[in-house]
Amino acid sequence: MNPGELNRAELAQLAMMLEVSAYPKPGNVDRCHDYPDTRLEHFLASIILARPALQRAGEASAGVGEIIYEAVDLSSVHSGGNTHFGAFILLVPLMMGGGISGATRVVHETTVDDAVDFYRAFGKTKVRVLSRDELDVNDPEVYEELRRRGMNLYDVMLHSASNDMVAREWVNGFALTRRTADRLWEEGCGRDSIVKTFLWLLSVEPDTFVIKKHGQDTAWEVMTKAMEVREGLRDLETFDAECIRKRINPGSIADIIIASIYVALCEGWQWDC
Amino acid sequence: MNPGELNRAELAQLAMMLEVSAYPKPGNVDRCHDYPDTRLEHFLASIILARPALQRAGEASAGVGEIIYEAVDLSSVHSGGNTHFGAFILLVPLMMGGGISGATRVVHETTVDDAVDFYRAFGKTKVRVLSRDELDVNDPEVYEELRRRGMNLYDVMLHSASNDMVAREWVNGFALTRRTADRLWEEGCGRDSIVKTFLWLLSVEPDTFVIKKHGQDTAWEVMTKAMEVREGLRDLETFDAECIRKRINPGSIADIIIASIYVALCEGWQWDC
Repeated sequence: MNPGELNRAELAQLAMMLEVSAYPKPGNVDRCHDYPDTRLEHFLASIILARPALQRAGEASAGVGEIIYEAVDLSSVHSGGNTHFGAFILLVPLMMGGGISGATRVVHETTVDDAVDFYRAFGKTKVRVLSRDELDVNDPEVYEELRRRGMNLYDVMLHSASNDMVAREWVNGFALTRRTADRLWEEGCGRDSIVKTFLWLLSVEPDTFVIKKHGQDTAWEVMTKAMEVREGLRDLETFDAECIRKRINPGSIADIIIASIYVALCEGWQWDC
Repeated sequence: MNPGELNRAELAQLAMMLEVSAYPKPGNVDRCHDYPDTRLEHFLASIILARPALQRAGEASAGVGEIIYEAVDLSSVHSGGNTHFGAFILLVPLMMGGGISGATRVVHETTVDDAVDFYRAFGKTKVRVLSRDELDVNDPEVYEELRRRGMNLYDVMLHSASNDMVAREWVNGFALTRRTADRLWEEGCGRDSIVKTFLWLLSVEPDTFVIKKHGQDTAWEVMTKAMEVREGLRDLETFDAECIRKRINPGSIADIIIASIYVALCEGWQWDC
């Protein structure tokens, strides 16, 4: 399969599809695990329905915030709640910029309007706030406040970077996305490499979504256990079942994985071998 | 979820996604079963990549044969082989005609060019020939022969209807698609209804793809065993495993299921409950 034949929207959709299909993936929805209220079909429906927004991202034919809003809006017509908000935050600049270096330029050029549109998207999801002193997404005055402070979307991400690994990518030149894409290349082609790369990332970075939901101790415990799985000291499927039971879903790690699969696919990494 | 918000291409993609995700589905690829050379990811990639052809079908902006060719072409860039040829044969007229009665008109209006394009699509797949006396898809003179005989695509399907349940739909007013969509409505909303409807169809109609691959006796045995599962006399997952082991994949039943989910979604049937 020649990735040159596919456009950016298609590569982004494939990246999202490959991430959710990869199995077993501790704690997250995968081809053999659902959560009662968020199921595989919700993820796949979001991937299908976000297409027009992803198409616009690939053509860079609107602003970052507007496209993130559109992607969230298009994919929120099912009952499964938020599925890809974090992924869109990473994919949209990567797609608009045609890769990591272009994305770094794109995020620096964002405007206050992008920030406003981002908050509108945020309001449509039920994602936890990015930090304690964050502008409150439920406060109707947030939009005015953003304009008063003159915060663009880069500033918003900078504000959240210390405790959100997705926001952090915007301000560090997509460093973890790059490292994870490199890891995929090292692991070789195909879906087993995605599972191995997921497990590697889980063992070396605390998931900030897990921290917000369950606290620092749980996030570190997940890292330790993921490392034990990698060292053959713990059973992967048992660990997966334990995470699912405790509703420990490393959603931000999944977002980074999607972004890294997208970057790798653009570079010619083969999913189909 | 209001199906009125979604266009025909999106509803078709959802129908294909819901069919392949439904589990357990005796013998076919589903969310927990692959074949060694055709995997869940291949089906999902085809669904994503066929989008431009499905868009054209929804807008009726090209001929039936041309769109079927385009859909097969777009979705054959992976190594998984044919995934949705039969589904496209049903979906394209249903989408172009805006439902079953329109589709019945569309298929009657097909041309010799549609038949030629269909054979080109056929040549791209490795699907078994439709019947013994069929025009041979590997014969380079087939296109000239179609033109000499003046056969349109409806004529081709009429020729194959006696031993191909997908072709039969074209000549009987999509009767089994209608009956199966009605069954989905009777079963109620959601994915369990898809599994129940699949099992029902498997127990009342011999799969013509299974007949061609394994013979009449096997197809009847599958029907009998599916009925026993429905009556609680046989375990569904064991039956599924047996079919997978023997490579008995009722692919034409899956095509009818996709078409019936599409029809039901257009009528407002809820997948997400």
